[in-house]
Amino acid sequence: MPDIMNKPRVVIFSQGDEVITGALVDTNAAYLAEQCRLLGFDIVRHVTVADDMAELIQVLKEVDAMADICLCTGGLGPTQDDLTTEAFSEAFQKTLEMDLEALEMMREFFAKLKAPMADVNKKQALLPTGSVRIDNRWGTAPGFTAVGQQCRFYFMPGVPFEMQQMMETFVLADLQRQFNVDQPQLITFRSMGMGESSIQQAVDELDIASDIRISFRAGMPENELKLLFPKHYSHQHIQAYIDDIKGALLGSVFAVDGFGQSVKSLPDCVDQLMAKNNLTLALIESLSQGDIARQCHPAWLRQAEVYPNVDDLMVKFGAEGKEVGEGLAVDLVKAHQAQHATNCSLIQLYERKTDSTVAVYTAVANHHSELSSTKEVWGRPLRQQTVASALALNLLRQLIQDL
Amino acid sequence: MPDIMNKPRVVIFSQGDEVITGALVDTNAAYLAEQCRLLGFDIVRHVTVADDMAELIQVLKEVDAMADICLCTGGLGPTQDDLTTEAFSEAFQKTLEMDLEALEMMREFFAKLKAPMADVNKKQALLPTGSVRIDNRWGTAPGFTAVGQQCRFYFMPGVPFEMQQMMETFVLADLQRQFNVDQPQLITFRSMGMGESSIQQAVDELDIASDIRISFRAGMPENELKLLFPKHYSHQHIQAYIDDIKGALLGSVFAVDGFGQSVKSLPDCVDQLMAKNNLTLALIESLSQGDIARQCHPAWLRQAEVYPNVDDLMVKFGAEGKEVGEGLAVDLVKAHQAQHATNCSLIQLYERKTDSTVAVYTAVANHHSELSSTKEVWGRPLRQQTVASALALNLLRQLIQDL
Repeated sequence: MPDIMNKPRVVIFSQGDEVITGALVDTNAAYLAEQCRLLGFDIVRHVTVADDMAELIQVLKEVDAMADICLCTGGLGPTQDDLTTEAFSEAFQKTLEMDLEALEMMREFFAKLKAPMADVNKKQALLPTGSVRIDNRWGTAPGFTAVGQQCRFYFMPGVPFEMQQMMETFVLADLQRQFNVDQPQLITFRSMGMGESSIQQAVDELDIASDIRISFRAGMPENELKLLFPKHYSHQHIQAYIDDIKGALLGSVFAVDGFGQSVKSLPDCVDQLMAKNNLTLALIESLSQGDIARQCHPAWLRQAEVYPNVDDLMVKFGAEGKEVGEGLAVDLVKAHQAQHATNCSLIQLYERKTDSTVAVYTAVANHHSELSSTKEVWGRPLRQQTVASALALNLLRQLIQDL
Repeated sequence: MPDIMNKPRVVIFSQGDEVITGALVDTNAAYLAEQCRLLGFDIVRHVTVADDMAELIQVLKEVDAMADICLCTGGLGPTQDDLTTEAFSEAFQKTLEMDLEALEMMREFFAKLKAPMADVNKKQALLPTGSVRIDNRWGTAPGFTAVGQQCRFYFMPGVPFEMQQMMETFVLADLQRQFNVDQPQLITFRSMGMGESSIQQAVDELDIASDIRISFRAGMPENELKLLFPKHYSHQHIQAYIDDIKGALLGSVFAVDGFGQSVKSLPDCVDQLMAKNNLTLALIESLSQGDIARQCHPAWLRQAEVYPNVDDLMVKFGAEGKEVGEGLAVDLVKAHQAQHATNCSLIQLYERKTDSTVAVYTAVANHHSELSSTKEVWGRPLRQQTVASALALNLLRQLIQDL
């Protein structure tokens, strides 16, 4: 596989006491790794160290010897704990120079905040000779890119928002300019109702070329299947794969992201359909306790009622003594829909089966038809809430998808 | 600082393609680092590599040379990608032996699942000579602990739940046995309504001894201030610090965790108070759209109504044409409380001020009194939801805390 040998090797380097001590989960590393994977690069290592000069210098040298690219976050702040620039300068004998443009941008940033710029901030405008500044219009610390002995380093702040803005406005384009790799195309299949191992098995049975990278992300209860196509694949060829995979996944795919469509999640999918069809919704939740409502857009969710205890719900809707089940859910949603001015209604009932299992009955209706489902849900309360609200959103999607 | 020199040096080592490519955020590393910090150890590095034999062997040797302890997750599964045990065996010339007890436990685990055990699983019972098995009663892969050249390694599965169970049932106790360090005491102040920089400034002005480690975690909108006291601090001494800090934080502290009390979050605090006082709640949400309801315990939340659009709420409660504000929130919550059998009622109204700012009016009442607040909230819709529901829970807490 000669093309793999030519892929740039990337190290993701995170710094700072908050990450090393576990006070913060390092979400930057996953974001940066994913971006590099989408560019077709190979990520060989993630490293995190504390704010310690000797450790920083040692790691910078190690990384320089092992990788072509290093994406580095953290340690660019104004305090004495922020040592990155100095460590880079020491590790590779680059002197530091005051970047007057950077200083001016920082002054403007503080002026906009109507805050005085402290003297300690000036240090943030010191950059190594030969480096290229990466402007930060979202915070104070400018970043920079520079080559050590042989590896190209990109230094960015640890604040996720600032880092992501700098990636999108400078680093991603610069990486493509500096490292001439054909960017692959990512297609994401979003599915519900089919387990991860069944998806894996169904995909294994398809004849997928070995240069297409396949990965899964098991959500709860959404599952993602991702295919990364090398650049030489034609539009038709990719379309054929999409059709095959949708068939193999037996109708569980609710959206395909990245091929002319952008659908980021099940709530996003429902939101697009509700908006396109100009619909409104009234909602009655029980087990999910408001978790459906908070995922709806206020433009089309008119009203939600939440009854954590199904008995209270039965009393409210005059159904005392009736048997809880899918049939009752359908009866109630039809009655509710008949009385309401919204285009759609949804109701959720549930019954406790064991300490950790409940049966969830969901029904949705519009003025023409209704759909309903029964599903056993296990696990901790929070998991049950999450699954129950996804079941509801998915049923609503099925009702409106074909409008 | 001689005691710091004696602290064991820890490396956190995560393995696997899902973490290295960014498909998964590595939450294990933060969990393990936090546990080690609470034991009084020093975390010097986090490293992540892909499932690659040469890389694994190299990293194991590097870690062995640099650390006293390595906590390692991932790579213990049955497939050909799972290389950890073999890599350890190669790196330090330890032969692998079939652990018959481990094999028997795996057979029992599969029998309980009523699933056949595949031949590939047998490999998971192969452990290096001289290692001590770490039982896994929550999955198939047993873990193990063994010394390389000089560093003690603990190998655990990458599934967070299995890893955490093994930490709690074996690893933490073993670490304390093997590494005789005086365990410090962690006190966490949970606060709302005071910004991170104000907290930092207030704490700076107190005279806190330099051997107490201070850290912050800025939540949204909860903030945590943590103090890690070395073992030699007496109960009285710690209590005096707690009193000082609560005073300095001007009433923003709603709970102190770790000193005879366990309060994990604002919803947990409210839950404990509602249960202790045997109260029930009826709820009317607008901006937060169900986000309050889902954080309440079903034992005491009787009913919630959600109106994303305040106009719909006004119609429902016969308040059309009235001015939206804190006063109206108080009137509505008092009327609502008078008509309902619950012990407490809460209502939330809001008004859009600019594209990204809303004013949130919250009022709570019981049969004796009421409390209300007005707060401007900015940011993206999800942030506004989160802040609005925290404001509501905090007001409810204030109402019931003194019962």
